[in-house]
Amino acid sequence: MYADRLQEIAPFRVMELMERAKELESRGKRVVHFEVGEPDFATAPSVIAAGQRALADGHTKYTQALGLPELRARIADYYLDNAGIRIASERVVVTSGASGGLLLLCGLLLNADDELLMSDPGYPCNEVFARLTGAKPVKVAADAASGFQISCAAVQAAWTPRTRGLLLASPANPTGVMISAAHLRDLLALCQGNQGVVILDEIYQGLVYDDQPDGSDLAGYRTGLQLSSEIFILNSFSKYFGMTGWRLGWMVMPEDAVRAVTPLAQNLFISPSSIAQHAALAAFEPEAMVVHEQRRKTFQQRRDLLARGLQALGLHIPVLPAGAFYLYVDVSSTGLSSTEFCWRLIDEYHVAATPGSDFGAAEADRYVRFAYTTGEEDIALGLERLAMALQRWAERCD
Amino acid sequence: MYADRLQEIAPFRVMELMERAKELESRGKRVVHFEVGEPDFATAPSVIAAGQRALADGHTKYTQALGLPELRARIADYYLDNAGIRIASERVVVTSGASGGLLLLCGLLLNADDELLMSDPGYPCNEVFARLTGAKPVKVAADAASGFQISCAAVQAAWTPRTRGLLLASPANPTGVMISAAHLRDLLALCQGNQGVVILDEIYQGLVYDDQPDGSDLAGYRTGLQLSSEIFILNSFSKYFGMTGWRLGWMVMPEDAVRAVTPLAQNLFISPSSIAQHAALAAFEPEAMVVHEQRRKTFQQRRDLLARGLQALGLHIPVLPAGAFYLYVDVSSTGLSSTEFCWRLIDEYHVAATPGSDFGAAEADRYVRFAYTTGEEDIALGLERLAMALQRWAERCD
Repeated sequence: MYADRLQEIAPFRVMELMERAKELESRGKRVVHFEVGEPDFATAPSVIAAGQRALADGHTKYTQALGLPELRARIADYYLDNAGIRIASERVVVTSGASGGLLLLCGLLLNADDELLMSDPGYPCNEVFARLTGAKPVKVAADAASGFQISCAAVQAAWTPRTRGLLLASPANPTGVMISAAHLRDLLALCQGNQGVVILDEIYQGLVYDDQPDGSDLAGYRTGLQLSSEIFILNSFSKYFGMTGWRLGWMVMPEDAVRAVTPLAQNLFISPSSIAQHAALAAFEPEAMVVHEQRRKTFQQRRDLLARGLQALGLHIPVLPAGAFYLYVDVSSTGLSSTEFCWRLIDEYHVAATPGSDFGAAEADRYVRFAYTTGEEDIALGLERLAMALQRWAERCD
Repeated sequence: MYADRLQEIAPFRVMELMERAKELESRGKRVVHFEVGEPDFATAPSVIAAGQRALADGHTKYTQALGLPELRARIADYYLDNAGIRIASERVVVTSGASGGLLLLCGLLLNADDELLMSDPGYPCNEVFARLTGAKPVKVAADAASGFQISCAAVQAAWTPRTRGLLLASPANPTGVMISAAHLRDLLALCQGNQGVVILDEIYQGLVYDDQPDGSDLAGYRTGLQLSSEIFILNSFSKYFGMTGWRLGWMVMPEDAVRAVTPLAQNLFISPSSIAQHAALAAFEPEAMVVHEQRRKTFQQRRDLLARGLQALGLHIPVLPAGAFYLYVDVSSTGLSSTEFCWRLIDEYHVAATPGSDFGAAEADRYVRFAYTTGEEDIALGLERLAMALQRWAERCD
């Protein structure tokens, strides 16, 4: 009765876990949430105030399909401030979230039966955008030994005459790891050599915690745009700027691609939210940036607290990530699959986390994603409960 | 270099006309705008205030993918208030504009190479949604003689083994006409007999001006949901509720279809705008409804003023429409094609309107869409200029 593509969409396993968490909470239980993929902070006060002013000023109509010119210019300036590179504002396209951006890119770049390479593990929704256009997502496994980076050899091995390009993320969900500038340069060269495109998801840009040593190839590296002007960048106001519910993102792409994507943006979206766009102008101002930077530091403290705590419990974190707000934790030492681990953790100890199976298949049974989108008190409580769980489960196994 | 589907997207002719209008305005000329497809009013003050409150309360995060439960319930209640029918709130899906809704429906219903029937003339973006999924939009001509309604015979003649269903709109863009209950019943029966679906775009619901006589089959008719619970309804907060820039709409569909579309909504949109959803709750309150009804009356006065004015100039309006905010006007008596008519009108008289070629092909050269989304003073000025134009053009033709 419904379209075939629905059969190919994997359910989010974490949804059932969240249902269970909700049910526990409705019975008065305190649940610790390590499963949530959005910041626990509301949007910065000055951005909220800008949204309220936009409403008072009657900015409630459609805008240009590619976004307000002043916002496109402000985003271009952000790359100058943040990464020292000049981007023409004509290369910036404002979108209805990074989701809206990826939809447009798939519509722009993919014919039916084209293949788009993407990382396993990776953000699970990516493949649905490709499938919507009739294209085929092809997973390339990235394991802990390679720092959860897909290798040039694996990309080359997966490349076929139908391959259109490669979708990367840095920092990545679920691992939090960044692609080094050197590795990205190699992947870009490989894809260009194959006449393919590179889409780089930078929606966690700004949520990066470790200063790189001078001389490191990451020193001064902020965006793939520093390496190539042919790259397609996806970005978002959701994460670093704390604006998930506003549904606003942006893309940067070559100017001829902007011309080509314009009719798709006009037809499929009319325009992004006018209120969100006016508010987003304030997100780059010093008053808001101070808040965003404070929050970044808070995330960094939480990462360190959670990582140290998990490691002290004997859980292995193969790559301590430099960005985003996730730890991808190897739970194989418990003797449980990641799905068993997550279900027993919520059922017995009221702690929610996301099993690796929501992010891929390759080594999904080993890994659980812990998000540190919850306060230090809850992180400490979650670690306490996890300590009890691991001890109890080990005893029973003996 | 880019996907083949881009070749099949017709450019909006009106965009070039609007560029010309903007250029004239930048040189200090006063342009009369009959080309604009959104209300000229800002959102009602109480809805604005609700949006501001939602921001103050920190409602800036993702919501449920199908929308806030209280908003889904409020939309269901609207059908009870407005049309006297009970709809389970589980059948309501809140979307990122009606655009987001149609994208989900195409993803839900259409396989590659499926065909979706739609009206010529019609809303031009519709076909792009179908093409994104690899399906084929098939136009069914609706002429003035049939009141711009597509006939059952034409639908049956266009039906093939690949036809998945029929997309209708009532009131319709660009004609403003409503489908009668009797005709909709016939079309529903025909499609069901062919194992096809009916998608009914009701985004102009509420912007209806003529009381139907008792005994008419339109008496008490407000929505296709009164005739069938199998129908797929698209609706929007943009038009009657004056919320274009917020990007919020909804769908009503059978419950099993809601279950099927849920993973698509989760993967492709995450959630509709939280701020827009909280504001929309206020759009149904009496304080806002008074404003919406006043505006409806304003539109009605404008329609009457513009229609009488155009008719007095000798222009033929084959169907005086009951809804939306458009008149579809036959300009063939001028001896000009609709495209020539529109270009000469903007160039020589600084009046903008949309040529029929933006809405189809069948009789597109005869028709121009005049939107009465501008005030009575501008309507009067536009009519004056049009009078001069018609007189001058007729003289030159002699």
